[in-house]
Amino acid sequence: MGRALITDLYELNMAASYLRRDMTVPATFSLFVRELPPDRGFLVAAGIDDCLDYLESFHFDDEDLAWLAGHGFSPETIGAFREIRFTGDVEAVEEGRVVFAREPLLEITAPLPEAQLVETFLLNQVTFQTAIATKAVRCRLAAGQIELVDFALRRAHGVEAGVAVAKLSAMAGFVGTSNVEAARELGLTAAGTMAHSYIEAFPTERDAFLAFVEDMPPPYTFLVDTYDTLAGVEAAARVVEELDLWDRVAIRLDSGDLGELARAARAILDERGLGHVRIFVSGSLDEYVLERLVASGAPVDAAGVGTRFGTAADAPYVDSVYKLVEVGGRPVMKLSPTKETLPGAKQVWRREGKTDVLARRGEPGPEDAAGLLTPAMRRGNRLLERSTIARARARIEHDLSVLPAAAKRIRRPDSAAPVASRALEELTAATRTGDRPTGRQ
Amino acid sequence: MGRALITDLYELNMAASYLRRDMTVPATFSLFVRELPPDRGFLVAAGIDDCLDYLESFHFDDEDLAWLAGHGFSPETIGAFREIRFTGDVEAVEEGRVVFAREPLLEITAPLPEAQLVETFLLNQVTFQTAIATKAVRCRLAAGQIELVDFALRRAHGVEAGVAVAKLSAMAGFVGTSNVEAARELGLTAAGTMAHSYIEAFPTERDAFLAFVEDMPPPYTFLVDTYDTLAGVEAAARVVEELDLWDRVAIRLDSGDLGELARAARAILDERGLGHVRIFVSGSLDEYVLERLVASGAPVDAAGVGTRFGTAADAPYVDSVYKLVEVGGRPVMKLSPTKETLPGAKQVWRREGKTDVLARRGEPGPEDAAGLLTPAMRRGNRLLERSTIARARARIEHDLSVLPAAAKRIRRPDSAAPVASRALEELTAATRTGDRPTGRQ
Repeated sequence: MGRALITDLYELNMAASYLRRDMTVPATFSLFVRELPPDRGFLVAAGIDDCLDYLESFHFDDEDLAWLAGHGFSPETIGAFREIRFTGDVEAVEEGRVVFAREPLLEITAPLPEAQLVETFLLNQVTFQTAIATKAVRCRLAAGQIELVDFALRRAHGVEAGVAVAKLSAMAGFVGTSNVEAARELGLTAAGTMAHSYIEAFPTERDAFLAFVEDMPPPYTFLVDTYDTLAGVEAAARVVEELDLWDRVAIRLDSGDLGELARAARAILDERGLGHVRIFVSGSLDEYVLERLVASGAPVDAAGVGTRFGTAADAPYVDSVYKLVEVGGRPVMKLSPTKETLPGAKQVWRREGKTDVLARRGEPGPEDAAGLLTPAMRRGNRLLERSTIARARARIEHDLSVLPAAAKRIRRPDSAAPVASRALEELTAATRTGDRPTGRQ
Repeated sequence: MGRALITDLYELNMAASYLRRDMTVPATFSLFVRELPPDRGFLVAAGIDDCLDYLESFHFDDEDLAWLAGHGFSPETIGAFREIRFTGDVEAVEEGRVVFAREPLLEITAPLPEAQLVETFLLNQVTFQTAIATKAVRCRLAAGQIELVDFALRRAHGVEAGVAVAKLSAMAGFVGTSNVEAARELGLTAAGTMAHSYIEAFPTERDAFLAFVEDMPPPYTFLVDTYDTLAGVEAAARVVEELDLWDRVAIRLDSGDLGELARAARAILDERGLGHVRIFVSGSLDEYVLERLVASGAPVDAAGVGTRFGTAADAPYVDSVYKLVEVGGRPVMKLSPTKETLPGAKQVWRREGKTDVLARRGEPGPEDAAGLLTPAMRRGNRLLERSTIARARARIEHDLSVLPAAAKRIRRPDSAAPVASRALEELTAATRTGDRPTGRQ
């Protein structure tokens, strides 16, 4: 099955119309986020590589065409769709770069029908993955020295989403994922503990802890809150002592006031000389809760973050758009009151410690500035290789290291929106007032 | 590739431990939602059929086993995993039924390792699909006479999520989807208009409208807000008049104050005698905005709902859990302070117009009550066939028709939580205080 029908019907309608009229002039579309979601001071670009994979292999297969032929598309259109490939140029921000509102993550320049057909898939991948990657990085920032593990599969929006979430968590610096399928597909570290049902399947907590150690290799993370949490900690401590467990042992708290329980558990463990037993917490965690845990000085070593991270619960999408900015060499813009766009192909210039400059593509950048958009495809041929998770992670680390602290705040951050170059401002003014196509005739 | 690794690592660890100890007594797990999300007075059960498909075909294939063998699982465990199939019984709420907090959507009774291994997948499907189905139904309820079309693909959490969202929108009574892949896979009605980029690709709006009519069969939905919305309405009206378009014609508003613009557009159209031209709106719609639009009497005929619906933005997950309630014939419960569960296998008894009764399975129900849980699998054989979308839709319609208006309110609804039967209350008390396994020894 091809992927060309993973699109909105109107893309096919518009492409058919363009093809019928030979409107195959080059068009440039810019994919960017209009405004950052609440409490976001930055975004982490993700899904770019999946978009390039898709563009590289874009085509309609026989099944696609047969379906379209049965649903109102003319034989001429079917014939034209059969031949179509993505033959355009792409400028892209690399996977894992920090970006801001209005900065293009992708710019596609291709014959108009091609550029139009790919819109929906590109938005789907970049929107979702950028929302999750940003959430993952925020969790990582809030967690400080606490190690994080992805626990999101059970509440992610399907299996595909769950695997993507695991990938993005690794990019953000999580140390493992509970998601075995993702671990296999992506070579991640699978991590897991035990469930309450395991405890309940044995006569006592102690029996369950003993059985687990007997049956499995380390690590051992004893879930202690099935009945009475601090009694559970003591039961686990006794098992640790009796079996002389000195390597990779932890207790896990999954309910109640995690900070307070962690302190109480730490005291119990330390009193018994079990300083090596780590404390793992889970349950409704996100960057807001993690920040409070860290601020309270709770002695937490690691945490599983699931639902609220994997659905990006407080901001499950970003306000992404794919806008025509140039067609046949003519800059265009949308003038809708609250949705105005800036015309023309662009570059984003970045100088460390300074505000980004949103510029016309081709104009010289400020001194010492590097362009954020890099050539990703030329005439349909891929130039930008798929990033490893390690490469994407290194980009995130670097970009965060130079991002002002105010933009990294978890609540009410300052966002460093880019400024427009003078040339871009002039083009915008000229496009708005000058050769503006008008709906008023 | 099998689907057995679409799970959390701890499920595999626990199953391995159970298998090693021959702990294959029958265990019953109950999948339910602990509390309804904010502003929800009911939930619509979904994803059940996908769970049954999965259980029916559950197995580890050679690739799965090879991966596990390389990741710490013993040859004995691999051998046991190789043989494992789902051989249990399943009670299920049928796709599309209205359910409330604490009511089981699925109850699985199977040898402990089997029942444990399938947890993550079941939660993944039911959580996501129930959250979206509920959101879809709320949009449908709020929209009144306004027809709805699914526009969510570009902002859904991946392609798989986008297709599921389209399916769930059809179950809820949406008239179409923009998602062509979903339309093909599921036999839905594909629907679409045109994008701003189409307008911008022509010298004027008028040129774009004329071209679209020339190139495509109806329906014609003219996007009028690219430059100046009311001028766009007039341009569209002139095209309708000149080309004498009398069938399936609409204008689309995608920005600004949709209610106000709809009224102004309706006035312009009616003044010209174009009462047949419908008004289609889109842009950041959800049940809250739709309710206000309807309350304001805005003359809107149809609406595209996308992002906020397709991500269930205000409640992107439900608080679903999969809890052991019985093992080897012994009722069990979790006693964690805020997460207490009710022990034992259950049935939910429903009498129209009355509160549901949450009962022990096997005890007689109240007079005139029907059980919500039906036999879905016996000894691994499926009894409950996959529902068509039409069947699921009919269930939703029926259940909504008997649901109190207060539970259907969009904001601050009253939720009809079930009451426990006396037998269930007695079992709960006995399990809590009686043969309670304790962490205190």
